[in-house]
Amino acid sequence: MPDTAMIDADRLNHSLDELAAFGRSEGGGVRRLCAGPEDGKARDWLRARLAAEGLAVKVDPVGNMFAVAELAGPDAPVVLTGSHLDSQPSGGRYDGAYGVAAGLEALLALRKRVKAGGLAAKRNLGLVNWTNEEGARFSPSTLGSAVFAGLVATDFALSRTDGDGVTLGEALSAIGYHGADRGPPKVSSYVELHIEQGPELERTGHRIGVVEGNWGTAKFVADIRGRAAHTGPTPMAERRDALLPAAELVLFVRALSDATGGALLSSVGRLDVIPNSTNVVPAQARLFAEFRAVDPAMLAEACAKLVAKAASLSTPGVTVALEQTLDRPAGTFDPGLRDLIAQAASACGYPPLRVHTVAGHDAIPMKTVCPSAMIFVPSAGGVSHHESEFTAPEDLAAGAIVLAETLARLVSA
Amino acid sequence: MPDTAMIDADRLNHSLDELAAFGRSEGGGVRRLCAGPEDGKARDWLRARLAAEGLAVKVDPVGNMFAVAELAGPDAPVVLTGSHLDSQPSGGRYDGAYGVAAGLEALLALRKRVKAGGLAAKRNLGLVNWTNEEGARFSPSTLGSAVFAGLVATDFALSRTDGDGVTLGEALSAIGYHGADRGPPKVSSYVELHIEQGPELERTGHRIGVVEGNWGTAKFVADIRGRAAHTGPTPMAERRDALLPAAELVLFVRALSDATGGALLSSVGRLDVIPNSTNVVPAQARLFAEFRAVDPAMLAEACAKLVAKAASLSTPGVTVALEQTLDRPAGTFDPGLRDLIAQAASACGYPPLRVHTVAGHDAIPMKTVCPSAMIFVPSAGGVSHHESEFTAPEDLAAGAIVLAETLARLVSA
Repeated sequence: MPDTAMIDADRLNHSLDELAAFGRSEGGGVRRLCAGPEDGKARDWLRARLAAEGLAVKVDPVGNMFAVAELAGPDAPVVLTGSHLDSQPSGGRYDGAYGVAAGLEALLALRKRVKAGGLAAKRNLGLVNWTNEEGARFSPSTLGSAVFAGLVATDFALSRTDGDGVTLGEALSAIGYHGADRGPPKVSSYVELHIEQGPELERTGHRIGVVEGNWGTAKFVADIRGRAAHTGPTPMAERRDALLPAAELVLFVRALSDATGGALLSSVGRLDVIPNSTNVVPAQARLFAEFRAVDPAMLAEACAKLVAKAASLSTPGVTVALEQTLDRPAGTFDPGLRDLIAQAASACGYPPLRVHTVAGHDAIPMKTVCPSAMIFVPSAGGVSHHESEFTAPEDLAAGAIVLAETLARLVSA
Repeated sequence: MPDTAMIDADRLNHSLDELAAFGRSEGGGVRRLCAGPEDGKARDWLRARLAAEGLAVKVDPVGNMFAVAELAGPDAPVVLTGSHLDSQPSGGRYDGAYGVAAGLEALLALRKRVKAGGLAAKRNLGLVNWTNEEGARFSPSTLGSAVFAGLVATDFALSRTDGDGVTLGEALSAIGYHGADRGPPKVSSYVELHIEQGPELERTGHRIGVVEGNWGTAKFVADIRGRAAHTGPTPMAERRDALLPAAELVLFVRALSDATGGALLSSVGRLDVIPNSTNVVPAQARLFAEFRAVDPAMLAEACAKLVAKAASLSTPGVTVALEQTLDRPAGTFDPGLRDLIAQAASACGYPPLRVHTVAGHDAIPMKTVCPSAMIFVPSAGGVSHHESEFTAPEDLAAGAIVLAETLARLVSA
């Protein structure tokens, strides 16, 4: 029988309050960019919380933080849970932080239960805080977990630069999280608890979602080069305005979604204009576009059309260079682990909804390391990546309870 | 007879070299934003050059720098020349700096000539460096001259903020140019020497342009408000993307010019996207558009169409607020002064071309203070507001000679 009382919901809420103070924004959200000073404080908080519980933190070269509760001896495989403490520039207080704070509660609760003889552990239990999940300060996203999974080289990750030319390696060193440790060598499964960031759970009245799989995602950067000139005297025929093809691409990307009735998700979230001065014809524009879809054929068609459109906009005077920076195919999480989560949720009194994640998460790179899966709790209004992001305390508690029950079953299996 | 040998062309070129070092960019241009550290160094350079010649500098509250050579006693009116030392973010080395450096040479040459008895002065001769001509760091442009002319309140000017929220007043204080002096109380005429920033002089083989007048200019800021959301899970129908109307406006502004065959000049030089993160649907976009035309009716029609278009793009979910920030009518410079410049140019051996300025200049606000006019020299390829801006040394010398001859006639009149 699951011990649904073992999670300290008050302490979980208190932890989220404390984390939300690191980079708090006026609107009640957070600005806690990867490896910035606020992220450093959040990391210090986590390290201190773990130290107070007698748990040491290992930091790997890309700043991923690991702590392992040895429930079954030093050589036992590790069941890993966690998420990320970095946020979007104007993000919410739950995205990522919830999975870390609830993972910590679940870990402490289970360790207590094992010590009290209420659970026979055959595996150890680990908590992780992944570096640069958001991809907001450094690109690409889910960088720390991708390095841990061996999908991305450490040197490549450390050499990624932010908008000011600071590398991830320099930023991590500045906050003291460019470590030399390794993560746990034997991870037997990975479970990540996260807010849904979509409307399905709320709409259908479910507290718990079992994430079946992820949509396919393709990301692009268009680098458009024109020529700077005075916006006053320069004749129109002699202007080489890099912003014009950028504007065409913004509308084209949207039109591709509209043509599918919205089945294809698309966005241009970022557009850098250089030099971005009112009196200067834009010399350069960098545009970041993405598509997401369940259907691989729909995604591939959108990508091909964007490539063709970009090529058609290129002229001798204004060149458009399009590069695909991400090609994440649609995929599924481990079926056995999904079923185990569903059973755990039902046993805790929360019959789950089977959902998909449109967003990327660290659990996706982790699929290549071990069986991985995710648990979702509702997001009010489906809103995320916004200061008004909100999940009700009862939902937060329910998620932590189901996570603890899932981990209990994995640790004792 | 004009004394065409009185200008020290080598020293003028050397001055331009020295000024170009303050904020030098890799491509050979300058980044010397108004009241930034580089502008501070350029101002210090000017102050030191004047001090070495026994000329004191007065700095007014908005940072305009004035020096007066007393050729005709302390109470005589002042014939003023000069330009500005600030630049665009990726600007050239001649725009503004040339008018200051050549004005200094002309002033020193005339003072020498008066002292030697070669010229009977009835007026004094002043040099000015105006603050924030470019409008690149602070908006609007020609701010210092507009304050001097009484067109803009000092407090308004000092409270203008840059992209980081720093006010002009704070920036001037930081570099030591938030002064308490007043400019010369009696200015009898203003003559500004500048590069053309257009192709006409080069195209027609003229060294000197007499500027007849200025085109009309209208500037707008569109503030577009949507709602931030995750670019992943948020359904398309629920996105409130502020970048979409911005893209429509960029293309609409260009289409208005195309419809006139290019007679209407237009641009969107700046577009701020907020938060500008790849994973976030843009919550806000601020777009800076402008139109320029000789024909007032054409300009008015473009403005009206833009207003209507912006209104049509506004929806309950994404609002478009358009504000006109500049309405500078087409106008002419003082006819008598224009003729005087033309005669001086011809007397120096440089028969002039009559041209118009499309760009704004400090001589435009100064028209409301006293008879004002401008002298242009060629810009290679018509290029300006770009690192590759270039004017040949012979053209620079010719401009300075004609400026000195013009000032000689004004001072002795």
